[in-house]
Amino acid sequence: MPEGNAADEAVHRLLHPRSIAILGASDNPIKLSGRPLDLLKRFDYAGRILPINARRAEVQGLPAHRSLDDVDGEIDLAMVMVSAEQVVEGVRACAKRGIPAAIVAAAGFAESGERGQVLQQQLAEVIAETGIRVLGPNCLGMLGVRERALPSFTSALDEDVRLLDGPVAFVSQSGAFGTFIFSEAQRSGIGISHFLNTGNEVDLSVAEVLGGLVESEQTGVLLAYLEGVSDGRRLLDVARRAGELDKPLLTVKVGRSEAGARAAASHTASLAGADAVFDGACRQFGLIRRNGTEPLLDAAQLFATGRRTRGRRMTTLSLSGGAGVLMADEASRHGLTVQPWDERWQQRMAAVIPDFGSPRNPVDLTATLISEPDMLRRALEVTVEHPDTDIVVVMLGNADKGSEQLIDAIDRAHRSTDRPLVVVWTGGSGRPRELLRERGIPCYTDPGRAADALAALAEHSLRPPLPRPVRPQDTDERVARAVLQEARDAGRTQLDEHESSRLIAAYGIACAGALPASDAAAAAAAAVELGGPVAVKLLSTEIGHKSDIGGVRLGLRAEEEVRTATEDLLRIARDAGDPSARVLVQRMSSGDAELIAGIKHDPAFGPVVVVGFGGVLVDVLADSQVGIAPLDIASARRLLLSLRGAPLFEGVRGKPPLDVDAAAEVLARLSWLAADLGAEIAELDVNPLLVSDSGAVAVDCLAVLADG
Amino acid sequence: MPEGNAADEAVHRLLHPRSIAILGASDNPIKLSGRPLDLLKRFDYAGRILPINARRAEVQGLPAHRSLDDVDGEIDLAMVMVSAEQVVEGVRACAKRGIPAAIVAAAGFAESGERGQVLQQQLAEVIAETGIRVLGPNCLGMLGVRERALPSFTSALDEDVRLLDGPVAFVSQSGAFGTFIFSEAQRSGIGISHFLNTGNEVDLSVAEVLGGLVESEQTGVLLAYLEGVSDGRRLLDVARRAGELDKPLLTVKVGRSEAGARAAASHTASLAGADAVFDGACRQFGLIRRNGTEPLLDAAQLFATGRRTRGRRMTTLSLSGGAGVLMADEASRHGLTVQPWDERWQQRMAAVIPDFGSPRNPVDLTATLISEPDMLRRALEVTVEHPDTDIVVVMLGNADKGSEQLIDAIDRAHRSTDRPLVVVWTGGSGRPRELLRERGIPCYTDPGRAADALAALAEHSLRPPLPRPVRPQDTDERVARAVLQEARDAGRTQLDEHESSRLIAAYGIACAGALPASDAAAAAAAAVELGGPVAVKLLSTEIGHKSDIGGVRLGLRAEEEVRTATEDLLRIARDAGDPSARVLVQRMSSGDAELIAGIKHDPAFGPVVVVGFGGVLVDVLADSQVGIAPLDIASARRLLLSLRGAPLFEGVRGKPPLDVDAAAEVLARLSWLAADLGAEIAELDVNPLLVSDSGAVAVDCLAVLADG
Repeated sequence: MPEGNAADEAVHRLLHPRSIAILGASDNPIKLSGRPLDLLKRFDYAGRILPINARRAEVQGLPAHRSLDDVDGEIDLAMVMVSAEQVVEGVRACAKRGIPAAIVAAAGFAESGERGQVLQQQLAEVIAETGIRVLGPNCLGMLGVRERALPSFTSALDEDVRLLDGPVAFVSQSGAFGTFIFSEAQRSGIGISHFLNTGNEVDLSVAEVLGGLVESEQTGVLLAYLEGVSDGRRLLDVARRAGELDKPLLTVKVGRSEAGARAAASHTASLAGADAVFDGACRQFGLIRRNGTEPLLDAAQLFATGRRTRGRRMTTLSLSGGAGVLMADEASRHGLTVQPWDERWQQRMAAVIPDFGSPRNPVDLTATLISEPDMLRRALEVTVEHPDTDIVVVMLGNADKGSEQLIDAIDRAHRSTDRPLVVVWTGGSGRPRELLRERGIPCYTDPGRAADALAALAEHSLRPPLPRPVRPQDTDERVARAVLQEARDAGRTQLDEHESSRLIAAYGIACAGALPASDAAAAAAAAVELGGPVAVKLLSTEIGHKSDIGGVRLGLRAEEEVRTATEDLLRIARDAGDPSARVLVQRMSSGDAELIAGIKHDPAFGPVVVVGFGGVLVDVLADSQVGIAPLDIASARRLLLSLRGAPLFEGVRGKPPLDVDAAAEVLARLSWLAADLGAEIAELDVNPLLVSDSGAVAVDCLAVLADG
Repeated sequence: MPEGNAADEAVHRLLHPRSIAILGASDNPIKLSGRPLDLLKRFDYAGRILPINARRAEVQGLPAHRSLDDVDGEIDLAMVMVSAEQVVEGVRACAKRGIPAAIVAAAGFAESGERGQVLQQQLAEVIAETGIRVLGPNCLGMLGVRERALPSFTSALDEDVRLLDGPVAFVSQSGAFGTFIFSEAQRSGIGISHFLNTGNEVDLSVAEVLGGLVESEQTGVLLAYLEGVSDGRRLLDVARRAGELDKPLLTVKVGRSEAGARAAASHTASLAGADAVFDGACRQFGLIRRNGTEPLLDAAQLFATGRRTRGRRMTTLSLSGGAGVLMADEASRHGLTVQPWDERWQQRMAAVIPDFGSPRNPVDLTATLISEPDMLRRALEVTVEHPDTDIVVVMLGNADKGSEQLIDAIDRAHRSTDRPLVVVWTGGSGRPRELLRERGIPCYTDPGRAADALAALAEHSLRPPLPRPVRPQDTDERVARAVLQEARDAGRTQLDEHESSRLIAAYGIACAGALPASDAAAAAAAAVELGGPVAVKLLSTEIGHKSDIGGVRLGLRAEEEVRTATEDLLRIARDAGDPSARVLVQRMSSGDAELIAGIKHDPAFGPVVVVGFGGVLVDVLADSQVGIAPLDIASARRLLLSLRGAPLFEGVRGKPPLDVDAAAEVLARLSWLAADLGAEIAELDVNPLLVSDSGAVAVDCLAVLADG
């Protein structure tokens, strides 16, 4: 597989081909292998169309070539329409001819049994050998709408469609469902520059294709439909780049539920990554995730305007007070605000609406609007001047007759401002909605859907730039590796508490002071050295959950208590089959919140950190948040504050606020440990991480190494 | 206002009029006062149409009457189209003529200033005097679609509409927005028997109109659009009746958010009741609440089929694996389940689908379905026989061409089963969706919307019958009233802790044993009498939050501790200005969960109980649940189990499960106290109510009486 510029160039040629060769092009435009040519002709593709057919001089009225070698000049893209068994040979021929990219349409690869897996493996080998980039196999191809480059056998363009060009690029792992979404988008007036289906992803993944699209000037908004993610880090690179270029990246990823993930694993070749990790990645890197086709397209419609919002303050104008209230409810549920205007601005609005209307916000223009449509123009003129309005929503309904004046008023206001302005138009024939969308004004039928889209816009617009994580001081990878090596040398993958603490201490994480001891006398001495009340805990790599067998004694003050506790624990360990167990004597720590923080290795995204509230709240809240390692401090802080129990950080019942910064720093340090040694660590848990008003301290820690 | 049968009969005549007189009917069908007649004529109303016009012998081609007295025979309904100033006189004439019901269209009443309020008051007086029932004023009237009884001046029927009759009845407080929803419903193929707009509700409220509709054989599904509720109890009576008749009652009530409630108060004459109370009422009485127009109509479409589900187990068939996974995700999010079929049934399914499909559930028919549409028929035949499938969802897309065979297969399966079967059809022209709906098969574009509607269906179908609350034993209203009277006699509305505890003890609620004491010696004696460790608390009706000033001392064992604490507290009270304060000596109680339970008086629903988790969880969970008093034990239990912290009841960290039954009984008893004495009690809080594994005990209680 070529790296760097050559690879980028190949994807660029795929997305913007100046010439397309069709291997196995059929003369019959209805046959699958005849469709790509039919589409290219029907929609007037301006580049060279090069049918390759060994048995015909002419295909669908165009001169055919016997083979690729008979073609003069450069070929940017090959559409491979031969059967699965012939694909490997065909792709090899393309590579030999110097074609940088090919689309393989045929099914019958990894998705369908043993023979298919062999074929896909062979295809992968040709790709690795030759460096050609391949989309597919088992894919519908591409609809390059802007350039009418349509190397695809989709039937979605068979019906009476006009192709609507626009700033939205859409990449889908699914062919059929992707096409449905594409069609639904076009029907909703959403202009699309590119639609690609990646199929089995033997080579090009959704992330790589997005990586090409994000650099295109044609692209303003990116949509991705995902069933599984194999190269999570690459996706995050694209998300970062999209963020830098202020191009929103919206995604639907299925397999959120257990039922869904089970089904996803059964039906695609790629494994659905743990959904919580994907969710965490989205939050951290600014991917906008939506749960269905309509929410995806509702947001896409709004983002396609190119507008951003400078805040969350919405003003609503409606001809029905109730509709305005419903809009305020939904705005509020989605984190937007609808505040009454100040007195002076209310007076300005009152001057242009009926007495029995309301100038407060939601502004109620009353049903008088139907007979006096010009009122909308006047009210919108006041609204777009109102300095505390970030977002304008106009709520209308029915009124197919007489809609022209309303639409004109909205259009005029929309053009006079750069703030987002959307319309909710309920009922009627739907024609006014179409007219508004044709003018580039987003239009919805339901207040909730408008609010959901606007919330996504606000989330994107107001997001601070994604920082590059900076390595904290005092991380010592060498010391950490030495701890791991010791365990490996001893033939263990389980680290005991003391080793685990040394591991995280090497990354500058504060651990409760502790000393190991082999017998009661040593333990008593350790307690004296540590000072203050101590805990005595069983230290064993043989025995799993020490709390469950009574292996933890807390709050011991007297020397005698420490001795007795130590003797008890060592006896328990002997009874449980570990005569070589020791104890750990640890200074007691205090804190007002117990967190659990850990490291995991995700198959799609690699090392991640996980954090949640511990203690009794584990059962009640059952929530945790995931961060991709390494993590910058600001993102770590956001992670903590997005926990359901976050109000606890503010200091409940008169207590001072807790040191969230310290907890965030621990998370960030853990994330660097994960990033540096992630592949070696199968699992690591700090439980509890005690957070007080002046720090965060790891009280217990256990790490398990990855095999091998 | 007449009560009982006469009132019911008047509403019945309004809903099913055999004759309609139109006061002030204009000859011009475009003028507001000409529209009702135009609609009745245009849609062939079969009853008598009686234009009343003093100045014309003929109106819009029909013979007019000079006055109501000139009309022979019974008149069921009067449509009053005169100006606001003439309304009172007009309605009085209707009543005099013996017309049981009138619709008043004119605006210019309570919604618009002082003069309007006077007019509305006068109208109310005529109604009270004469017993005539009035819909309005300031309302669009009624569309009795089934009987083409259309006394309304709406413009919604001006456009090219066919009126679609069906089992859904819809009542809206808003005219304009109600019409939008009505139109949207009709456009979505939802058949409606009645649409009424109640406007200012001088007489008939939404609840009363629903009360008439629920008894109609034409009605299978009830929809209500509410901006405020004035007669909550009447609404709940309707909900109870609707439940008995298995007629789902769906509602959108605006004013959920603070912003919304503020706006609602500003724009209608009715005050939006606290939204949490409305939510609690919905849960308890089985009203199905939705947050927007689309969710409302999505559910209505499904309920209109008349089908119910016997469970939550969904089987999904799709031609795209990913679409099936998305459906499983959304089903799961809405509390439905998508489980793999058992081996034997998978084999049956495998026999009719391609090898590379999946017979597990979600069933993946693969895109082969497009060329082999008969596969859907075969797969559905297996599915409707599958005993563990409660709900069938078919997911398709695009394919306008060739949709006939797919639609036929679905139609056939739909007719062969009584289980709910819905279709999600994404993309395409929308025509297949229309065809399916014409056949009575609910159809959606988005999986999430289908799941939301199905969840509502499951909620309704699987809901146990609403029990009548049974008064628990050992409630003594006489004793409780005596406690209140004592305080009133002393000129107080604030009860102290001891009095408050006696109040709830009179309703059989276990309180921690406690004795009041005026000095240290008495306190010490009380402690001895109670036995065990005690708490000493300040007892004062002057001093508010005793904890805040250090007025509570816990876990006192020695007599000396009790004495010292008592002296401390009495000194604190003296310093705070209450020299007559006493202390309460209370036996220490224990419990693993702290609840806060209370009584409030809601302006719309009257006495309610509120419950939530206390202690540190108040800040973290910030959730509570509301029940309408009186409350049956089963509903009280459901209330507790719907709290976010409910996992705590299961016994966390190895502790035994808590006594939810005991807590539920306390709630039920509180609710009877509220029901019996609710009007006298402004507020009552039990905080904490300690729940252990064997009981629930009130540890602190404070009540405030209503003024006067």
